[in-house]
Amino acid sequence: MEMERATLAIWKERVENELDRVVMFWTKYSHDSQHGGFFTCLTKEGHVYDDLKYVWLQGRQVWMYCRLYRKLQRFHWPEILDAAKAGGEFLIRHARVAPPAKKCAFVLTRDGRPAKVQRTIFSECFYTMAMDELWRATGDPRYQKEAVEMMDQIVYWVRVDPTGLGQPQLSGTVKADPMAVPMMLLNLVDQLGEDDDVMSRKYWELGEWCTENILKHLQRDGKVVLENVTVDGKEIPGCLGRQQNPGHALEAGWFLLRHAIRQRDAERKALIIEKFILQPFQSGWDTENGGIFYFQDADKFCPTQLEWDMKLWWPHNEAMIAFLMSYNETRDPMLLQLFCQVAEYAFEKFSDPEHGEWYGYLNREGKVVLNFKGGPFKGCFHVPRCLYMCEELFKALLMTS
Amino acid sequence: MEMERATLAIWKERVENELDRVVMFWTKYSHDSQHGGFFTCLTKEGHVYDDLKYVWLQGRQVWMYCRLYRKLQRFHWPEILDAAKAGGEFLIRHARVAPPAKKCAFVLTRDGRPAKVQRTIFSECFYTMAMDELWRATGDPRYQKEAVEMMDQIVYWVRVDPTGLGQPQLSGTVKADPMAVPMMLLNLVDQLGEDDDVMSRKYWELGEWCTENILKHLQRDGKVVLENVTVDGKEIPGCLGRQQNPGHALEAGWFLLRHAIRQRDAERKALIIEKFILQPFQSGWDTENGGIFYFQDADKFCPTQLEWDMKLWWPHNEAMIAFLMSYNETRDPMLLQLFCQVAEYAFEKFSDPEHGEWYGYLNREGKVVLNFKGGPFKGCFHVPRCLYMCEELFKALLMTS
Repeated sequence: MEMERATLAIWKERVENELDRVVMFWTKYSHDSQHGGFFTCLTKEGHVYDDLKYVWLQGRQVWMYCRLYRKLQRFHWPEILDAAKAGGEFLIRHARVAPPAKKCAFVLTRDGRPAKVQRTIFSECFYTMAMDELWRATGDPRYQKEAVEMMDQIVYWVRVDPTGLGQPQLSGTVKADPMAVPMMLLNLVDQLGEDDDVMSRKYWELGEWCTENILKHLQRDGKVVLENVTVDGKEIPGCLGRQQNPGHALEAGWFLLRHAIRQRDAERKALIIEKFILQPFQSGWDTENGGIFYFQDADKFCPTQLEWDMKLWWPHNEAMIAFLMSYNETRDPMLLQLFCQVAEYAFEKFSDPEHGEWYGYLNREGKVVLNFKGGPFKGCFHVPRCLYMCEELFKALLMTS
Repeated sequence: MEMERATLAIWKERVENELDRVVMFWTKYSHDSQHGGFFTCLTKEGHVYDDLKYVWLQGRQVWMYCRLYRKLQRFHWPEILDAAKAGGEFLIRHARVAPPAKKCAFVLTRDGRPAKVQRTIFSECFYTMAMDELWRATGDPRYQKEAVEMMDQIVYWVRVDPTGLGQPQLSGTVKADPMAVPMMLLNLVDQLGEDDDVMSRKYWELGEWCTENILKHLQRDGKVVLENVTVDGKEIPGCLGRQQNPGHALEAGWFLLRHAIRQRDAERKALIIEKFILQPFQSGWDTENGGIFYFQDADKFCPTQLEWDMKLWWPHNEAMIAFLMSYNETRDPMLLQLFCQVAEYAFEKFSDPEHGEWYGYLNREGKVVLNFKGGPFKGCFHVPRCLYMCEELFKALLMTS
């Protein structure tokens, strides 16, 4: 017990210091003071190597800044809130491809012209997250209205009629349900309902729907989490059906766990920790080199993704959150050990002590292969979200242990 | 000179034997005798791990089989021609998404239902290649009609009106000309015009247009080949503009070189060998580990493609063809040495002496990372095309040297 307390105290300090260095990196290098929004294509030293603005990453950074501003006293800086507001206003002005229609672009030019559109809901989801958190940080009801209106549009696309997304209907396309959709929505249910009874009630049934639709990805008598299943929860033949993404399962795990904690559902909590957290980690951890594989195939065929054996930063962030949250619920020392195992690997391999922030992409052996700090899919999100959540969990643990 | 002759003889035998083993692999494992067409998702041992049919790979295998049947006496097997015909008929029946419109799918289910459509011209290009070669192998004019009608549709999309491809028009999208389009068309000009004065004349001007549109990718005073430039031949800012793909430049190199040989343009030949063959190879060859990088950035930033430092099979195939064809034109021993350098690496690292065919995907250090023989982008094409073309070049060289 004393040992565990010491471990908690040491890691609390490590994640706090690391979060400071990460936030410093983004505040120093990523702000576009001319147009609002953020540069996210940044070299290891913080130089801008491309000025495109990926809407996922714009929304995520607005969310992250507001969350830090709102929850941690030491980030209650006007500079952070101003940058978040400028990012939010940039999104309100430019994210929609053809306003008033709500479909958002995937990439914008630096000055906000749409460059690419994806036929999915994710740009809109990160828009919603950004607006809701911006409302909470500023109190400006305009942002909450933006959030709720976009949320309702997303739910309509997912549950009523996807026509507005523009996905082609082809006779040979398998109607695959990707786990990302209910995951993302469950995350939004959590976001919009925080300390808000009206919103919690509004989205209660959606939360149940999301949980059910994530749980249906647990297949083969509970042995594997598959990324894509049929609408009625059956396995899909071929590579698409066998695809596993351990980091994604771990992220789904802590989304589900938070939901089960709020519902005070002990049985569900135990199931999630076993099937969505421990099991995907055991399958995804590379016992030879350390680190979590990016993709796997449930029948042990070689995945067709060229990057399948690479170690990406974000699965390690999700694993850290998942294990620490699980430990906070159960106080099972094995879960704290697993947190330490992942965190040691991550701090050693991804973190850059010289310039701050983490590298994102290592090869199987753990060597940095892409040496930038931000890119089309890596911005100010997974690393600081993980460090902030772990910091909060450590505080809670140290108070009660 | 004697040394060179010995080298030529040794390599002629090596590529002949390798081609036999490669063809054996595909004829043994890839034929779908039930629906026609080919399984291309094959494990290292030749087992089918997915039965989706990628239209690029279907068209390419039809083309490859017909070419081998037609040009090399030892492959003049009814079995090969029958499989090619069954593949061609499968494409005629199923490749078009909504016949009589000519837009083709990117992937079909095993029984031919469209599963995915790309908003580009490449499925249609490989359809055209397949039909033209099938006409040459069988003499059936129905196939030539298919080829020419599809070709004319492609040219219309590229040079008159791309609306039928369904690409969205967005105000922030850079009008980037990818080098792949004129490359592919130049290859088709070559294909359709072989020993055919009428067709050669019909597509003569198109060949000039292609050449010009490939050459405009030579940028920065002739120092680099960039994958994407503006319509009027200027560099595009950002990652997209700086993107280099050495294997693709080498492939463009030998397409251009063939064209210049037919035009008897000595000055052009020298330019191509220097700028599209030697220069991209010098920039793309990994002097530390051997092998050709997949992507590079013209300003030495880290590419954003996760697979940028991997060694893929096909750039090595293209380099082998490019160097041997250049040597055949110039008899410069340095070019034969470069052929040997690439071929030694490729035979050692990619070829599988146990089960036949080549692995496709190595890490930077040259270790196999994806151990299948065929996948969504690797079928019966680059390896046998390279071996067949090298065999023909060796024969010509040994006859005249």
